[in-house]
Amino acid sequence: MKLATLKHGGRDGTLVVVSRDLARCQAVPEIAKTLQQVLDNWDEVAAGLELVYAMLNGGHARHAIAFEPRQCHSPLPRAYQWADGSAYINHVELVRKARGAELPPEFHVDPLMYQGGSDSFVGPCDPVLACDEAWGIDFEAEVAAVTGDIPIGATPEQCAQQIRLLMLVNDVSLRNLIPAELAKGFGFLQSKPASAFSPVAVTPDELGLAWKDAKLHLPLEVELNGRPFGKPNAGMDMTFNFGQLIAHVAKTRELEAGSIVGSGTVSNKQGGLFGSSVANGGVGYCCIAELRMYETIEEGKPKTPFMNFGDRVRIEMRDGDGTSIFGAIDQTIERYRPAA
Amino acid sequence: MKLATLKHGGRDGTLVVVSRDLARCQAVPEIAKTLQQVLDNWDEVAAGLELVYAMLNGGHARHAIAFEPRQCHSPLPRAYQWADGSAYINHVELVRKARGAELPPEFHVDPLMYQGGSDSFVGPCDPVLACDEAWGIDFEAEVAAVTGDIPIGATPEQCAQQIRLLMLVNDVSLRNLIPAELAKGFGFLQSKPASAFSPVAVTPDELGLAWKDAKLHLPLEVELNGRPFGKPNAGMDMTFNFGQLIAHVAKTRELEAGSIVGSGTVSNKQGGLFGSSVANGGVGYCCIAELRMYETIEEGKPKTPFMNFGDRVRIEMRDGDGTSIFGAIDQTIERYRPAA
Repeated sequence: MKLATLKHGGRDGTLVVVSRDLARCQAVPEIAKTLQQVLDNWDEVAAGLELVYAMLNGGHARHAIAFEPRQCHSPLPRAYQWADGSAYINHVELVRKARGAELPPEFHVDPLMYQGGSDSFVGPCDPVLACDEAWGIDFEAEVAAVTGDIPIGATPEQCAQQIRLLMLVNDVSLRNLIPAELAKGFGFLQSKPASAFSPVAVTPDELGLAWKDAKLHLPLEVELNGRPFGKPNAGMDMTFNFGQLIAHVAKTRELEAGSIVGSGTVSNKQGGLFGSSVANGGVGYCCIAELRMYETIEEGKPKTPFMNFGDRVRIEMRDGDGTSIFGAIDQTIERYRPAA
Repeated sequence: MKLATLKHGGRDGTLVVVSRDLARCQAVPEIAKTLQQVLDNWDEVAAGLELVYAMLNGGHARHAIAFEPRQCHSPLPRAYQWADGSAYINHVELVRKARGAELPPEFHVDPLMYQGGSDSFVGPCDPVLACDEAWGIDFEAEVAAVTGDIPIGATPEQCAQQIRLLMLVNDVSLRNLIPAELAKGFGFLQSKPASAFSPVAVTPDELGLAWKDAKLHLPLEVELNGRPFGKPNAGMDMTFNFGQLIAHVAKTRELEAGSIVGSGTVSNKQGGLFGSSVANGGVGYCCIAELRMYETIEEGKPKTPFMNFGDRVRIEMRDGDGTSIFGAIDQTIERYRPAA
């Protein structure tokens, strides 16, 4: 089934069930008012939601209204956990190569992952607010899983079984703040502003054969200012699947229902030695930084700029029929202006 | 006023108002069921809670029951944000000195801070669960502030005004997992298991003159296995106050109500060149690692072990009259045994 959160109704918004074609939706206050409530009580409420979903798809939902992504918040407007991996080692390897460093061999067996801020996400069509273009504003297109309760020490297989929902993410990064912040040794904080998630979260069974081995085997489409920028397949070159990423978090502590675990920037190995843009027949990139790394490796320095105010990024994934699965993340960069 | 959360009543427990002497408490379902609800609607509910608090202190609360810290969860059993600073530079300097490194000068103006996991805290008297003593289990006694809503770019003064509550924290650290994890560059994840907070959270006005310059000027008392281990003053040697720590988080993103920001391990500069235990008339330490660092500096290697299963740590703070302000964090280390 497909679930979304409309903005009205308070800090956690209003849960709606969304039809498969993203045309209609219906609130279900008699089952749950918010998505977190659904995740807190999954076993009790899932069947009721599935029933509403079936009625919506059959055209029998009496109180259905048109589904409008611009009225959506992120499916979880705030969450108790957002931990983001770097499962596509190609991306990590490029970061290193661009600065002349080797990839440590343990990176192939021990996932790189950071704890992100989750108190205040923005909606899928809300602006990315930044005070300064000099911060080096970049998008990162990713896939994320929302979990049920997971005990300490759960295996990757057990963790994969507890994936309730999948979403897309724009994990915005402030590239020019990263080097100094990571040099301090405690990871990202200021360099990762509020993320945005796709309008719709879907259960894994919605993905059919595209959900296999706890990976999502479909291209992740990215447009920058209306032009194709990337379409790497999220199921390819993913060194750690979602079960392994979640198990990494669970090694020393339990995860509570509604935890979000991200894949990291989706990245495929390019055909040749060098990167290849979509225009040149390649799969392109899910962040500007990756293109800049190829430019650095090939030409000694990056030439594509990070995002400026007014730039727009769109992130979407379609099934084999070309139908949007999650709806699109569609964000414009805007200068933040403090209230007077 | 003083607020706490009893464990019964679901994932977020049941909010109670607690008398100043920590003897009695009363649920207030007509005002708010959970502490997060209070933080979400502070301006609407604070006056009503203050009234109940006054009645409790006057002995006029009709439905009051005995307050029992062992029935408490952490005041926020789960939170949308836990970001922990390292405001006591003495502690950071010792870490470096013990490994022969200098403190970078910018550490005096730019706070060191990490994003922690907040989906599943443990109660103040719950065990610290770990799979393996070899992880190097250590406590870190700290002070933490709970915020209201804070916009991007708020000043330290504005942030200090938005501090709703103060608590104590045991920010458990797995010392032997830290070096390899930090070497990966993305900060703490597995090396920081679930934190525990004091039974009671208090508004800053409860602290009288001890709350000054957004610092808490009282000794933080730590006992290890029933013996005094530390009593440094949390208001001394704090390089960054809570307003500055919160403003550090707010530089690039807003903080939503209920965000918890920690001080980092409380640490005072010792009188002489070397550390000084409480038994020797010193203020001692708020974590074992700090004592081990002094041992390393003085004797070439640490001799005090980290915690073993069965070891117990107690963290408490008293006012000028010797009355416990927050109740005690009182935790025993236990081996985690997975459910069959």
